[in-house]
Amino acid sequence: MVLIFTWMNPEALRLTAETGYAVYWSRSRQKLWRKGEESGHQQVVRDIRIDCDNDVLLLKIEQKGGIACHTGRRSCFFQRLDNGNWQTVEPVLKDPSEIYGKG
Amino acid sequence: MVLIFTWMNPEALRLTAETGYAVYWSRSRQKLWRKGEESGHQQVVRDIRIDCDNDVLLLKIEQKGGIACHTGRRSCFFQRLDNGNWQTVEPVLKDPSEIYGKG
Repeated sequence: MVLIFTWMNPEALRLTAETGYAVYWSRSRQKLWRKGEESGHQQVVRDIRIDCDNDVLLLKIEQKGGIACHTGRRSCFFQRLDNGNWQTVEPVLKDPSEIYGKG
Repeated sequence: MVLIFTWMNPEALRLTAETGYAVYWSRSRQKLWRKGEESGHQQVVRDIRIDCDNDVLLLKIEQKGGIACHTGRRSCFFQRLDNGNWQTVEPVLKDPSEIYGKG
């Protein structure tokens, strides 16, 4: 199941490979993002792939807490195109206010 | 299984939804790319999803010919990071010269 799409830079990839936990590059914050650092929803990395033209990475992971999306859903891809409209088809498993902002 | 990463513009998405076959936007050729138009490896679309910030699409498809990659492999993600080196871990199912360039 595809959970999330995000970005890496070389440092993020290096740290991901070294630590075994997914580290991404936050373009909005312009800093490394250790996935789960706030939410606890870390991703344990099982496999790292790169595509045929070497510019897209694919991580196979174990999702801690079963929630990858900041909305509290399992996957970020929770909206389905249905007769021309986007419909939300996956439940919120945990309220984001319970996941974030406790600090 | 994740097969390919590519691009869409609104027209590509509209045609994909209308026809039920994946249509992408080729950035290099700056034109619509009807997946399989040369190779015959069309993608029959079963589900179209969009992510939480509405900028990444996910297509669930049936892959005609069992080959999505221009290298003749099932998936474009055929290189695995193994002790710091990228190793090719998926076989070529059909020689690209047999897939393309028949005029």
